[in-house]
Amino acid sequence: MIDTFASSLVSALTPSHLRFLEALFPGEGFVGEPAAMAVYGADSSRRAAMPWAVVRPKDEAQIVELLKWAEAERVPLVPRARGTGMSGGAVPAFGGVVVSSLLMNRVLDIDADDFCAEVQPGVVTAEFQALTQKQKLFYPPDPASLKISTLGGNVATCAGGMRAVKYGVTRDYVLGVRAVLPGGKVVEAGGRTHKNVVGLDLTRLFVGSCGTLGVFTKLILKLLPLPESSATVLAAFSSLRDALDGARGVFRAGILPTALEFLDAKACWAIAQLKDVPWPTASGGSNGAATQAVLVLKVDGTTASLAADLARLETALAQASPLCLFKGLGAAEEEPLWELRRLVSPAGFRLGPDKLGEDVAVPRGKTVQAVEGYQAIGAEQGTQIACYGHLGDGNIHVNIFYDAADESQRARAQACKEAVFRLTLSLGGTLSGEHGTGITKGPYVAWQLGEEERSLMAGIKRVFDPTGILNPGKGWL
Amino acid sequence: MIDTFASSLVSALTPSHLRFLEALFPGEGFVGEPAAMAVYGADSSRRAAMPWAVVRPKDEAQIVELLKWAEAERVPLVPRARGTGMSGGAVPAFGGVVVSSLLMNRVLDIDADDFCAEVQPGVVTAEFQALTQKQKLFYPPDPASLKISTLGGNVATCAGGMRAVKYGVTRDYVLGVRAVLPGGKVVEAGGRTHKNVVGLDLTRLFVGSCGTLGVFTKLILKLLPLPESSATVLAAFSSLRDALDGARGVFRAGILPTALEFLDAKACWAIAQLKDVPWPTASGGSNGAATQAVLVLKVDGTTASLAADLARLETALAQASPLCLFKGLGAAEEEPLWELRRLVSPAGFRLGPDKLGEDVAVPRGKTVQAVEGYQAIGAEQGTQIACYGHLGDGNIHVNIFYDAADESQRARAQACKEAVFRLTLSLGGTLSGEHGTGITKGPYVAWQLGEEERSLMAGIKRVFDPTGILNPGKGWL
Repeated sequence: MIDTFASSLVSALTPSHLRFLEALFPGEGFVGEPAAMAVYGADSSRRAAMPWAVVRPKDEAQIVELLKWAEAERVPLVPRARGTGMSGGAVPAFGGVVVSSLLMNRVLDIDADDFCAEVQPGVVTAEFQALTQKQKLFYPPDPASLKISTLGGNVATCAGGMRAVKYGVTRDYVLGVRAVLPGGKVVEAGGRTHKNVVGLDLTRLFVGSCGTLGVFTKLILKLLPLPESSATVLAAFSSLRDALDGARGVFRAGILPTALEFLDAKACWAIAQLKDVPWPTASGGSNGAATQAVLVLKVDGTTASLAADLARLETALAQASPLCLFKGLGAAEEEPLWELRRLVSPAGFRLGPDKLGEDVAVPRGKTVQAVEGYQAIGAEQGTQIACYGHLGDGNIHVNIFYDAADESQRARAQACKEAVFRLTLSLGGTLSGEHGTGITKGPYVAWQLGEEERSLMAGIKRVFDPTGILNPGKGWL
Repeated sequence: MIDTFASSLVSALTPSHLRFLEALFPGEGFVGEPAAMAVYGADSSRRAAMPWAVVRPKDEAQIVELLKWAEAERVPLVPRARGTGMSGGAVPAFGGVVVSSLLMNRVLDIDADDFCAEVQPGVVTAEFQALTQKQKLFYPPDPASLKISTLGGNVATCAGGMRAVKYGVTRDYVLGVRAVLPGGKVVEAGGRTHKNVVGLDLTRLFVGSCGTLGVFTKLILKLLPLPESSATVLAAFSSLRDALDGARGVFRAGILPTALEFLDAKACWAIAQLKDVPWPTASGGSNGAATQAVLVLKVDGTTASLAADLARLETALAQASPLCLFKGLGAAEEEPLWELRRLVSPAGFRLGPDKLGEDVAVPRGKTVQAVEGYQAIGAEQGTQIACYGHLGDGNIHVNIFYDAADESQRARAQACKEAVFRLTLSLGGTLSGEHGTGITKGPYVAWQLGEEERSLMAGIKRVFDPTGILNPGKGWL
């Protein structure tokens, strides 16, 4: 589908194009030096491409002029924020001018009566959350990157996170979007009301559209009252099935945890290489059993109710015979337990110097079957695969480790990735639960989406962007 | 915009058209008698139009054939379920064949491990909820019509309800949609996973599209663990401002109620005409004050935590000096309090034999200003206006009462409606929080949505339905 759009686009900028951009974006608004531009060409997928130029708009008026010009001149544009994406969605792999949102980083309004906020897209998520918390308000989406990623990037990718089990994903907190379309048209979808059913849902169409439909200039976000406190349980199990039985027991007890994370045996092993862990490792355990899986659960609510909730969690998990169980009530006690969970990402590299980090999701009840299948794929290919992540919504981070300098390992890692995708789809799953398809999963989208669905998406794309200048060649395109 | 589509459509069925439909829908699948058809031409907005014919598909294969034929022959189709809509969305006001979903009413799957269900569109919402509850699962959306309305209708309109404050609306519980498009194309959007970011969000585009994009044949819905119990507080106040201060106090205390409803003075008065009410009426009250507003709040959770939650609610409300306050812990104690709230709809007719029932929404913090403004509009026009509804999300049912037999009253009611819309929009609100625009609000959509937004919606409509056969002339079209 890429060619349909790309064929009409220019393949490089002319000197006159560059003069236009330098004039529209004076001073720090324009980046043209290759060394400086290179920074804007990579993301956390470790993919990179050199932008043709980088512009950093300060206001909507500049974006309107840019999009008028880009459509008229058929210049591809690649919207970008902090580049924390895991699938190359912001990498100008097919060429183009990178449009950075980082100078549009003002919080316009946080309203404790309306329970909503208005922000520019370049605001860093964690900084925004800190501001809301001062007013006892709560913006739940918590992608792992939240300390550095932006609200605009989160909305563009429909970022998930650990709290999605109870609170949903970014989509569920976007009330409105203001965006500029190719040709410079400004559109406003949604608004400040918590309910709104006038017209088609353009707001949620923008969410997760990965910069392919418009360039955001303002986001209207929904806020909740801030829960008083939270509590955490970490439990280790002698088998993956026990751990997943424990998770099932929690749901069956009517508990909707804020977060429900798991670590498989390889993930537990890797963490133990970096830090003393509280769970029995291969060498020990009260009954001689070693930890094969760990669950970490969070609940939130009032301080008064959390002690009782912890007891209920413990009872629910006890049926799955945990090897050990640790509890934390309130942030100070919880933090050491969550630090262990967070270590899995850096610790993983003990399994290999390079990795393919997938984020498949399966129907929640298929998680055991999926993880056992992924482990079998690793064994079959002689490749280290560690699985962990958001058990509560069946969103599994499958990390395939290899040495990119070794051709055979590279090939086997790629074979693992494709086998993981096939198994996921055979279980009714999806190739991406939260990273998006970008360039790393682009070639596989047709494995999941039928021709009719892709054709509808391409049709919608053409309505917003008839000349295909916005982030061409990405994801489902 | 209507003409763009309608001009290419036929204006009546030919004998050959009727023969085709009778052959495709044998037996009870075809309704052609005017008396029987008339039932399929009205909805709860009290608008009606005679269908050209009514068909009742039993399976997707019939719908595929119907949509192939209808596109080829340019025959408009009006999808319909139970006709509980409040805005005429299912009324064939511009002609067409009504397509009833009521024979496709099977629950295909309720899965306590996946926390999802698959249903045909004609399943009645309350019947589905009863089935999920047997498995300790919870489908939160609760439009007032839920005992008779269907899941398909709820999804087509993005139905709201009282529990939206805590749990969101229908949109938030739709994981996937299977639909047939004009020409007979079958598309599948989404699936059984709780997270999914592959491609544009076609699923949520179908939600709230009011039968204009496709005919649903299957819905995949998200379920939660069933909360153990619930509790309710009803409190009366001597002014609307006190009541809304009380509501603000609840949120400021960090409480996210399941439901937060209000009744204004006229609504309270009307209920008191039907039933003995527990709040002080004009004639009494311990300090001589009469009830000017009532709040009804529900919280849910574990039985253990609810007693404490009730105490917190009471403390939060006490700051607004309620005239009286009643509590109920568990369904048996709560029911009498909610019965009072439910009475408002029938009781309203004590204010006039006919009504315009609007469902505007404003930013939550603008609710006092909005309700006082609506009351002033009623006073100015000498028209009875009662306001009540979903205070928790700023979604206000503005009921304008009049006698349709009196031309002056009719004109003043219409003037009230338009003034209510203008005030709502001036406060940053929306014309419809949960009913949709249908035919009753269609003429006003352009007051709210700009030309760019409507043009995008029309463009998307053409991608799905290039000849415009699906529910022409409705809402934003």
